[in-house]
Amino acid sequence: MNKAYLSLERHFARLSSLNDALGILGWDKEVMMPSGAAERRAENLAMLEGLRHEILTAPIMADLLGQADAGDDVWRAANLEQMRRQHAQATALPGDLVEASAQATARCEMAWRTAREESDFKSLEPHLAEVLRLTRESARATGEAVGLNMYDALLDSFDPGTRQTDIDPIFTSLAASLPELIGTVLERQKSLPAVLSPTGPFPVAQQEALGRRLMQRMGFDATRGRLDVSAHPFCGGATHDVRLTTRYVESDFIPALMGVLHETGHALYELGLPAQWASQPVGQSGGMTLHESQSLLMEMQFCRSAAFAGWLAPQVRAGFGVADDAAGWDAASLHRHLTHVEPGFIRVDADEVTYPAHILVRYELEKALISGDLALADLPAAFNTRLHALLGLSVPDDRRGCLQDIHWPAGLFGYFPCYALGAMTAAQLRNAACAANPAILPAIGQGDFAPLLAWLRQNVHGRARSASMAQIVNDATGKPLDASAYLNHIRRRYVDRAPDA
Amino acid sequence: MNKAYLSLERHFARLSSLNDALGILGWDKEVMMPSGAAERRAENLAMLEGLRHEILTAPIMADLLGQADAGDDVWRAANLEQMRRQHAQATALPGDLVEASAQATARCEMAWRTAREESDFKSLEPHLAEVLRLTRESARATGEAVGLNMYDALLDSFDPGTRQTDIDPIFTSLAASLPELIGTVLERQKSLPAVLSPTGPFPVAQQEALGRRLMQRMGFDATRGRLDVSAHPFCGGATHDVRLTTRYVESDFIPALMGVLHETGHALYELGLPAQWASQPVGQSGGMTLHESQSLLMEMQFCRSAAFAGWLAPQVRAGFGVADDAAGWDAASLHRHLTHVEPGFIRVDADEVTYPAHILVRYELEKALISGDLALADLPAAFNTRLHALLGLSVPDDRRGCLQDIHWPAGLFGYFPCYALGAMTAAQLRNAACAANPAILPAIGQGDFAPLLAWLRQNVHGRARSASMAQIVNDATGKPLDASAYLNHIRRRYVDRAPDA
Repeated sequence: MNKAYLSLERHFARLSSLNDALGILGWDKEVMMPSGAAERRAENLAMLEGLRHEILTAPIMADLLGQADAGDDVWRAANLEQMRRQHAQATALPGDLVEASAQATARCEMAWRTAREESDFKSLEPHLAEVLRLTRESARATGEAVGLNMYDALLDSFDPGTRQTDIDPIFTSLAASLPELIGTVLERQKSLPAVLSPTGPFPVAQQEALGRRLMQRMGFDATRGRLDVSAHPFCGGATHDVRLTTRYVESDFIPALMGVLHETGHALYELGLPAQWASQPVGQSGGMTLHESQSLLMEMQFCRSAAFAGWLAPQVRAGFGVADDAAGWDAASLHRHLTHVEPGFIRVDADEVTYPAHILVRYELEKALISGDLALADLPAAFNTRLHALLGLSVPDDRRGCLQDIHWPAGLFGYFPCYALGAMTAAQLRNAACAANPAILPAIGQGDFAPLLAWLRQNVHGRARSASMAQIVNDATGKPLDASAYLNHIRRRYVDRAPDA
Repeated sequence: MNKAYLSLERHFARLSSLNDALGILGWDKEVMMPSGAAERRAENLAMLEGLRHEILTAPIMADLLGQADAGDDVWRAANLEQMRRQHAQATALPGDLVEASAQATARCEMAWRTAREESDFKSLEPHLAEVLRLTRESARATGEAVGLNMYDALLDSFDPGTRQTDIDPIFTSLAASLPELIGTVLERQKSLPAVLSPTGPFPVAQQEALGRRLMQRMGFDATRGRLDVSAHPFCGGATHDVRLTTRYVESDFIPALMGVLHETGHALYELGLPAQWASQPVGQSGGMTLHESQSLLMEMQFCRSAAFAGWLAPQVRAGFGVADDAAGWDAASLHRHLTHVEPGFIRVDADEVTYPAHILVRYELEKALISGDLALADLPAAFNTRLHALLGLSVPDDRRGCLQDIHWPAGLFGYFPCYALGAMTAAQLRNAACAANPAILPAIGQGDFAPLLAWLRQNVHGRARSASMAQIVNDATGKPLDASAYLNHIRRRYVDRAPDA
């Protein structure tokens, strides 16, 4: 490598510190910040975003990128490529557009909280229109700079390298299979004997203690992260300081517990990224699809498996101080609850069978919003029509319809596909992991995640952004991503009721 | 005002956002951060400090400051003056010195934690030597730029306008009176009839609930701040988001409770600063002496008064679920505990009578360290000698001697005097407030802080940095700061046992 490249590493290390600051401030906003500070915090975050943009687009950057030579090292070369990508995306956007977007989304998020509560799309519409306008402006500018259409430019910002043309065939095959598959699953479910439910209340302190024990079993290092409570569970924080959240209800322990396992999957990915590249672009995770694959691999593929339920049931009984022979607390009943399928309105509450339907709706609609084919005023009706077509449900109000998610108010267009792609990736990775090391599934049945984590560290986490998502998936699983592993998994777990599914 | 001035306001608003980010990250470091993130956080904070320095010293700043005209408005004129002051201080320091200092203090703070625990000055010495070296280098550079000697340059960075020549006569009169006064107070205390102590344990949840109720009575707006726990209580956070901490022990509720009242005094000052100047230098608090005066006015002057103890005692009994006639829980006993005097080794545990002695020791030693008259290796012995001279105590180990405070390891030389000056200022302000509005003290006796807060808002908080500390004290109390109000207060409360003291 040459001097210019080394100088770039120093500049990007500073940006990495700024990203960390934004990560902690973003976490704090959701978990700690008093309500009266919201407006000021929005200004602060917008300012820091602006500063990041300013550093990234400073004239020296273009000079250094022009002169930089990363040498023969694969990681350095990938690092330089990521630097160029970030720089190209940033220089495409004028600083005032970046700050305007940050402020508009902050305002829109605030308006959304009230609008959702009151199921009042009209009150959100002007704010969302402004966010959409600025998002389209940004997507057009970025797209032009890097030779992508608007929606691909948005996709690429969350999932480097993923294009609409990659997604369409996968989602088309999903859309073709899903309604019938859901019907079959629901029929099969009806045929199963009834099981009892554990009865609450489930004290929050006990739920939390159980969650922390499971995090530890999964390999989460408590000196490098936290578990807290927020209205909307997420995994955030900073380098070496990964912070996940959940939310508790005393009437049911499964949502919070599964939330913890899900977010721990994200956290293990972050904590498994190579430390020596932590402050460089190549050291970051390989995009949102891979990230979501890690949470779903843990939560859906393994922690809702029959094997894991066998180990989990006694842990749960001990956690809530229940006798070993208590009715409804056995492994089989627990597994039935963990794999219960029921079409519903709310995406984040959906089971893994109906979940992709929620994504298909949003994918289609956000493409149309970005292209201009769908007017914002028509969004609620279009949302309800599509959900009905895929899940057979009539959305009763916008709170349970197009107002349920924060993504669009937060300017996150092009993000939703990653959730479904992540589910497919998780299924494909599970097959590959279990084939590579047959000890993985039996170990999970003993609450031992070490063999799985070792495989993930080597095949996913440790590779960070040194190769594209497609390459990492291909290397790890021996083939490109498609929907077959996911569909096969659903059939085996929910129709065949295979004991190892 | 002219365009250049308005442009400066925009630049300083960005700096204000950066300060807020540093405030929240600093709070997080003490309250939330997992231990494994310490090193990375230190890098992140150093980087943000470097960024702040870079913005403040950018060539455009000098140009704008040269052209700026603030017009006739007193606040704008004071704002411009503060901008010039910050700029002069910053430009005096090269960026690499700022980053080196931030990193050295971060490392030194970490070393200090172990060194203090193990009472091992030798292990701290090389780190502290480096911090001292960089502090002296900074003080010399800043001092040369603004025409101050090294120690005055340090003082000025915490307490704008305060000089060694202001402090020396005040501290000389203190040092002359204090040892004898302490002796008289202790003699008088011996003559008092014995009182019972409330017996614990005092559950943390009840202590916290009581603290929160008192914060609310004092006028703290819970939508603009937080109360948490940290190893070392402080008041930090950001604009409109003031975060205070305390620490609880179950064997005694008074330290945590008084800690909360103390930090709430700081918080009320921050929350009382004029909102329209929040993002400008003139909108900041008027330095550390005024800040400390606000915490001590609340804690020492009012909340440890006999009048307040009369209102507090039933609150405390209710808070811990104790009968009204329980022995040791009456107002007189509580007041005796709140005003108990006992010379000790630890500054932060000291009562208000012996407290200034701890400051006199540190003031003298840090002046000598900065001037070079005292070698670092000789610090422990010098510390012990001086403390013995003033308080008659033989320091048994450095943990309870020169290793007890984080200030020097954190690079905070020139900070200690503010604590004692704050105590004098608090006494002088109390006299002025009670003279201006005779309803203040009786209201405090009813747990009503509104009249006091109204006076403080007008005479201290609302003035922010629109005038110098000396001017604000003079305007509010009718005379320059001296030790007489403080010494008189000590005599009236601890020797005369005056019922209104």
